Amino acid sequence: MEKVTIATVAVRAGVSRQTVSNVINTPEVVRPETRERVREAIASLGYRVNQAARQMRTGRSKLLAVRIEPARDGINGSVLDRFLHGLTDAATVAGYRVMLYTASGDDGEIATYEELLTEYDLDGFVLTSTHHGDPRTSWLAERDVPFVTFGRPWGAPDTHSWVDVDNAAGTAAATRHLLATGHTRIGFLGWPAGSGVGDARREGWASTMAEAGLPTEDVVAVDGVDSGASAAERLTNATAVVCASDSLALGAMRALPGRAIVGFDDTAVARAVGLTSVSQPLAEAAGRCMDLLAELLDGRAPTTPTHLLLPPSLVVRRTA
Amino acid sequence: MEKVTIATVAVRAGVSRQTVSNVINTPEVVRPETRERVREAIASLGYRVNQAARQMRTGRSKLLAVRIEPARDGINGSVLDRFLHGLTDAATVAGYRVMLYTASGDDGEIATYEELLTEYDLDGFVLTSTHHGDPRTSWLAERDVPFVTFGRPWGAPDTHSWVDVDNAAGTAAATRHLLATGHTRIGFLGWPAGSGVGDARREGWASTMAEAGLPTEDVVAVDGVDSGASAAERLTNATAVVCASDSLALGAMRALPGRAIVGFDDTAVARAVGLTSVSQPLAEAAGRCMDLLAELLDGRAPTTPTHLLLPPSLVVRRTA
Repeated sequence: MEKVTIATVAVRAGVSRQTVSNVINTPEVVRPETRERVREAIASLGYRVNQAARQMRTGRSKLLAVRIEPARDGINGSVLDRFLHGLTDAATVAGYRVMLYTASGDDGEIATYEELLTEYDLDGFVLTSTHHGDPRTSWLAERDVPFVTFGRPWGAPDTHSWVDVDNAAGTAAATRHLLATGHTRIGFLGWPAGSGVGDARREGWASTMAEAGLPTEDVVAVDGVDSGASAAERLTNATAVVCASDSLALGAMRALPGRAIVGFDDTAVARAVGLTSVSQPLAEAAGRCMDLLAELLDGRAPTTPTHLLLPPSLVVRRTA
Repeated sequence: MEKVTIATVAVRAGVSRQTVSNVINTPEVVRPETRERVREAIASLGYRVNQAARQMRTGRSKLLAVRIEPARDGINGSVLDRFLHGLTDAATVAGYRVMLYTASGDDGEIATYEELLTEYDLDGFVLTSTHHGDPRTSWLAERDVPFVTFGRPWGAPDTHSWVDVDNAAGTAAATRHLLATGHTRIGFLGWPAGSGVGDARREGWASTMAEAGLPTEDVVAVDGVDSGASAAERLTNATAVVCASDSLALGAMRALPGRAIVGFDDTAVARAVGLTSVSQPLAEAAGRCMDLLAELLDGRAPTTPTHLLLPPSLVVRRTA
């Protein structure tokens, strides 16, 4: 199939490319007989008005961009993969397509925004992995590029729409479940302080323990099964442990056999080993992000940005 | 930032949109003083030649499309997620971007090709999950749409370039490892006959057992942990089991405690539970797919299509 372009149509109809473009975009300015000739050429050549032509007409590409993270340990990385599946599904339903990009670090990601905005007529971005001191949102906001974030701004200006999962509610539910099953010495195995998500997961456990008037014991580790196991060994009093991730929980299961363990993210690994874990509503979060971005793009967003905090749920299995 | 378009530049320079387009695409046809005026307008407005304009010039969008699968059990589905990560990385290095689409069934996917080809100037496709009776490759080939497949044609015309992993070599290596560690009664837990990948995984085990002159015992199950456990219970003689997937292997571990078990795909779950498993070189496969497609698109592909069968490797852990 030789590619049929506007130029092919123009030659066949004996008019300029601009005239063909006018017939497609502003037919009222073209004389009826010319219009008819161009339309016959379009039909006989099987020319399909492509995205480039449509863009010129509507200024809309129906194309969104989202970052794909480097493949990680396959446990925590799977969370963003599930978000990506959900986003692609929701985008398809809403008539959008998703373009992927990779980037390393915030500055690298901002450089990629420039590149993408230059090379493609993107309608907007869905940002993931928001964090303290995140410069990406102000960069996009200053340039009036439409975006929503999956993740709160964590201290950055709260002037855009976002969707997040209530991490503190998740560990609070895990802690209440352990209290209800008779535990009083419930420890926490978390990440080093400073990450918004990690601090929120710690807070849900800590506040629930404080409400119950119980003493607390907690340790931190960089995420991973081995690091989780080493840190868990230092939890000497706890009969039960709430963990900030399934990776840490797997380490705790290895280091502390027989104790009650709860993970976070309900990954395939949790299902495989029978780990009780907090489940994030990732497909719903992705769908809400798509809804908010579509509202923005269609000019029907409320003047105040929307902030949605979705509740996670606890999936009880054999470890707690 | 108000969007600067060709029209904005045209107004500023006092010329038509076509003239601006000519300055960008075929500057030699524009009078030097007009060219200069348009270029000054482009510079002062910060107009960036966008993808739509570039496409008209080069006929190349530098955009590839690949299907994203529905989120599955998180075990086997992770294989295609890892391929997607690898493909996005390789595409970025080669100057391409990846667009995602979803589709259900072969006919649904072909309908999506039509839609995508109408709406976006895609350069080509990377197809995954090839299977017997796959109509997708002939559809694309008949329309001269460039593509490569990750997966052999399995009986369909072998006239396009593809990359695959040698599944039979993977189960053969698993079987040889079990033979070397003293097992002689090695069973196979596979998928129902008829899938190219599943049959190849069975064949690697069967031929290695035949070479060793040993009797065989095998059962089949649809993929899944529970179905794998039920089927594994019928392996009464085997002291060791080679499985077609990590999901089936998890079932076999549960049903046959103490026996040697080998899985397939080296998923995060295998790492978490200490399952010996066959690992596919997914990042390499993705990189080779990108290379082959770039060769095609640059018109430097050899006249005979390239077929690459990559060897998997065995990751030995505590289950075998």
